[in-house]
Amino acid sequence: MDISEDELITAIGRVLSGTGPDVLVPVGDDAAVVRGGAGDLVLTTDALVEGTHFDRAMSRPRDIGYKAIAASISDIAAMAASPRYALCALTLSDDVDAGWAMELFGGMREASDEFACTLIGGNLALGPEVTVAITVTGEVARGAAVRRSGAQPEDVVVVTGTLGGAAAGRRLARRGAPWTEDELDAIRRFERPAPRVGEAPVLARNGATSMIDVSDGLTRDLVRICEASGVGVRLDLATVPRHAAAAEGEALGGGEDYELLATMPSVAAVARSAEELARVFATPLTAIGTITTEGLTTIDDRGRTYPLESSGWDHFA
Amino acid sequence: MDISEDELITAIGRVLSGTGPDVLVPVGDDAAVVRGGAGDLVLTTDALVEGTHFDRAMSRPRDIGYKAIAASISDIAAMAASPRYALCALTLSDDVDAGWAMELFGGMREASDEFACTLIGGNLALGPEVTVAITVTGEVARGAAVRRSGAQPEDVVVVTGTLGGAAAGRRLARRGAPWTEDELDAIRRFERPAPRVGEAPVLARNGATSMIDVSDGLTRDLVRICEASGVGVRLDLATVPRHAAAAEGEALGGGEDYELLATMPSVAAVARSAEELARVFATPLTAIGTITTEGLTTIDDRGRTYPLESSGWDHFA
Repeated sequence: MDISEDELITAIGRVLSGTGPDVLVPVGDDAAVVRGGAGDLVLTTDALVEGTHFDRAMSRPRDIGYKAIAASISDIAAMAASPRYALCALTLSDDVDAGWAMELFGGMREASDEFACTLIGGNLALGPEVTVAITVTGEVARGAAVRRSGAQPEDVVVVTGTLGGAAAGRRLARRGAPWTEDELDAIRRFERPAPRVGEAPVLARNGATSMIDVSDGLTRDLVRICEASGVGVRLDLATVPRHAAAAEGEALGGGEDYELLATMPSVAAVARSAEELARVFATPLTAIGTITTEGLTTIDDRGRTYPLESSGWDHFA
Repeated sequence: MDISEDELITAIGRVLSGTGPDVLVPVGDDAAVVRGGAGDLVLTTDALVEGTHFDRAMSRPRDIGYKAIAASISDIAAMAASPRYALCALTLSDDVDAGWAMELFGGMREASDEFACTLIGGNLALGPEVTVAITVTGEVARGAAVRRSGAQPEDVVVVTGTLGGAAAGRRLARRGAPWTEDELDAIRRFERPAPRVGEAPVLARNGATSMIDVSDGLTRDLVRICEASGVGVRLDLATVPRHAAAAEGEALGGGEDYELLATMPSVAAVARSAEELARVFATPLTAIGTITTEGLTTIDDRGRTYPLESSGWDHFA
């Protein structure tokens, strides 16, 4: 490190977006202080580790910072809450220079600004590897958070956007140029995912009974909803909206798409949500299955059923 | 790792203290949801990195977990706020078994219970080194947070408890047995620091104009108050309360004591605070200097003055 801790903290303080009428004490004190909201408080924390979640040789620090914030904001959105504040505990290794750290915070600031979140605090430590630990807070009207555990038999399973783009993007970025338009779009989704902050409250308002963000792969996250809700599912494989550059395996098992997977109480609720999402956000909403009383099955385009395998991303595998 | 991520998350969920009337969604969903408080919201984040902040060969996982939570709670206390919720983003390396991780969470739970905080969420990742990233939230009455920046010339500088114990404890633990009673007390302070959660509101109520917790060493944290407040200080070396097992250098520059360093508006305010702290918490409060308009000086027991050197713990040094 080519700079002292206090100097770097001061420099970082300048790129944080930690001001605004509700920020009473921004970064630089023992803790940040913000005005409490009227609703429920939503809290999530996550860590991105060099070698496991990102590769400094392959990714720009600005993209790593952006994605770190976007991924945590996605967890807030998946509760149907609005993001409010972000904090970062950053561990830097000896071979990282201050410019790299500033770019990382620049990317965090970009994502925070993009999704109406305020980056108010942080901490710096030195370690053998770079680790970016993010905490994001959100707010939701009292009692209005949508959990994983509310899915009921007969509910319609829906997903926003398309799946597999991030996994395809990771593969294509590693493969190298040339890239088609679709392939570039996939790479952009891998580098700069867009959490569905605006879309989630629309699904909640239309009665979503459960919701999760697709961070670890469609089948794995779908199984999580079923286990939390004590229900089964029949997933209609032919209807899964696949990104144009993604293979089928990437659409079913690829992580980091940050689309919303939800269960809706009726076909009419799906139709109302789809109309609003298309009109306001140009985001497609697709029905991909039905909640059942028990059993995890898939059905293919010829009507044959198979057990649903929970593939996807096990961080420990 | 001898267990899958989902299995470990389930096991950890059982030792978290994430229940209570204000916890609406505990660990296990995309994010935790808690009832918002009436006051201001206080937020702090910190990371403990293996090799930098702890040594697995030397420290028990239960102590590492306890200290991680206690250190962040101390940052909340230093704003004169009460801790409310804690989250942990844990990165485990391949050679850590599930039992170690469970003990770590057990220690976090102990500290959370001890200081009236609720451990509501977490995240697990795999990486090359163990990193424990903690976020703690707190609450303080509207506008009542005490910052670093309010010190005024003529204010009295005070500190709770004694200093240097944690640094002495680290040294003595490494040296090995035999230990005297005082030495064992120092080791306990190093392993299980006690954030001054109850004491901080007493100082605030008696008019504390600035406050910080002594995490990086007395002189370094005192300079931080002076810089943030735009004032100087005259530190009376002979009055600095030193732990019985600590050397002078450890009392002035040793970190991790987590005592409160504050500035009080008058000698009467110091006396009132000292009386209450002694009576309710059996915690001593000592006047150790005076805020001046400018200059950072120390004065020794013969009245000679020297420039104050900001020694202590630079995480990047």
